[in-house]
Amino acid sequence: MELWYTEEQTDNVRLSLKVKQHLFSDHSDFQQVDVFETAEYGRLMTLDGLVMVTEKDEFVYHDMITHVAMAVNPEIKNVLIIGGGDGGTAREVLRYPQIQHVDMVEIDKMVCDVAKEFFPTISNELENPKLALYYEDGVAYMKGKNSVYDLIIIDSTDPVGPGEGLFTTEFYTDCFNALTENGILINQNESPVYEQFAKEAVRANSKLKKIFPEVHVYQAQIPTYPSGYWLFGFASKKFHPTKDVKADVWNKLGLKTKYYNTELHLGAFALPNYVKEFFNNGNV
Amino acid sequence: MELWYTEEQTDNVRLSLKVKQHLFSDHSDFQQVDVFETAEYGRLMTLDGLVMVTEKDEFVYHDMITHVAMAVNPEIKNVLIIGGGDGGTAREVLRYPQIQHVDMVEIDKMVCDVAKEFFPTISNELENPKLALYYEDGVAYMKGKNSVYDLIIIDSTDPVGPGEGLFTTEFYTDCFNALTENGILINQNESPVYEQFAKEAVRANSKLKKIFPEVHVYQAQIPTYPSGYWLFGFASKKFHPTKDVKADVWNKLGLKTKYYNTELHLGAFALPNYVKEFFNNGNV
Repeated sequence: MELWYTEEQTDNVRLSLKVKQHLFSDHSDFQQVDVFETAEYGRLMTLDGLVMVTEKDEFVYHDMITHVAMAVNPEIKNVLIIGGGDGGTAREVLRYPQIQHVDMVEIDKMVCDVAKEFFPTISNELENPKLALYYEDGVAYMKGKNSVYDLIIIDSTDPVGPGEGLFTTEFYTDCFNALTENGILINQNESPVYEQFAKEAVRANSKLKKIFPEVHVYQAQIPTYPSGYWLFGFASKKFHPTKDVKADVWNKLGLKTKYYNTELHLGAFALPNYVKEFFNNGNV
Repeated sequence: MELWYTEEQTDNVRLSLKVKQHLFSDHSDFQQVDVFETAEYGRLMTLDGLVMVTEKDEFVYHDMITHVAMAVNPEIKNVLIIGGGDGGTAREVLRYPQIQHVDMVEIDKMVCDVAKEFFPTISNELENPKLALYYEDGVAYMKGKNSVYDLIIIDSTDPVGPGEGLFTTEFYTDCFNALTENGILINQNESPVYEQFAKEAVRANSKLKKIFPEVHVYQAQIPTYPSGYWLFGFASKKFHPTKDVKADVWNKLGLKTKYYNTELHLGAFALPNYVKEFFNNGNV
């Protein structure tokens, strides 16, 4: 007998992973949560049937959503993570000794609970005393915050279901206000390859450009996400993501990373022409 | 009714593309050749059931296998393409006015015939008078050539089946001898994500390092290839692929490309740490 997990990445493209065991399946107040032991990618968590995280390739996503901003501003002390319930982003942020406090706002407690039970290498800093974990709606949490955070990381699902409100102009404006004058906002920004994702990527980018003076897009290869080619957004009140990178400072920290390095940092912002055109023209 | 093409990328991972029509299916002297009309990627050619080329993402592969070398040495005049039967690499090479002659050695005439019939936008330079097309074994063709080509592009299938001999030390040595003193060799160099591909990538790289003074690896996002993350090899008798790039010269040519640009050229050589470690350590 063979068991296969299949994600319908679009109506016309499917990725299937061979499954050794279906370890967990439940419906939270917000979404369907499943855990599989896969043959190629180790453990896999899906939300509403879509890949959220796998043990084998999570390092790409978590390196790139964290270290780019930390290398641009090594003075970051207070961080907010919206979403990120598996704990991987918190784990990477908390590797920096200069971090004083991290607030993490995850709407779905079940995601954290499942991460703690089934993904110990990803969730292992969720009990760190520097971290305050709120099981709340990120949109509501952001209201009225003023100059509190040096870095906000929007580690959300796609803009359907529980993550939808995290892609609005109103939410991005609240983030802008919640950031200090050195503030940086990072968001996962979808894929440029399939039209439905690319449109969301361009839409999020256009909204950010109306609010932040510096808005840029960078890329990484995440094999289990649709097309394997994923984008992140970098928005900032004053820092340029490549001109202002403090490569020497970051390298002196001596952090061992499996994906990120400071040369790749520069390369990640060197987008293919077709992707640049999407963002320059504002449509796909 | 639904029709789906499925590639078994590894024993544990499958990519499936929805098919509108199965347009062609035949067995040549060397391999099984099929053409499908897919819903997401336009027309798809498979060889022995594996994705060779699709209309939608071929531009990534053909840009990256061609323009990197051309930007490092804009004096390239004589080119050899080994494989590349769909014609996409020849099409990109022949866009440069300085090119005097291209030899192309494709073992399987059926691949060229099928490309001409079903992929006119890819094969449209196969009748160019500057191109000589030989339906021969690339390994045999390379024997005894001395200082003939400025650029050799190994646009091969994977190192199983007809492409196997194109990954040997002997063949790479023949290529070295066939290159002029300014010569550059480009090869498609597999994916770092899945062990079986990564091992072949490291093996090819190790062999090249014993022959060429400059051997480097660069990357691109090709969604229909296993993992979506693909590598190319750059080997040269004297040029460094980033220090010696002639960005201004290349940009003055005014070539419109959908993927390649000279900033991306630099970024393509900025590999993730785990990939650098594979190649530095010589094992996966």
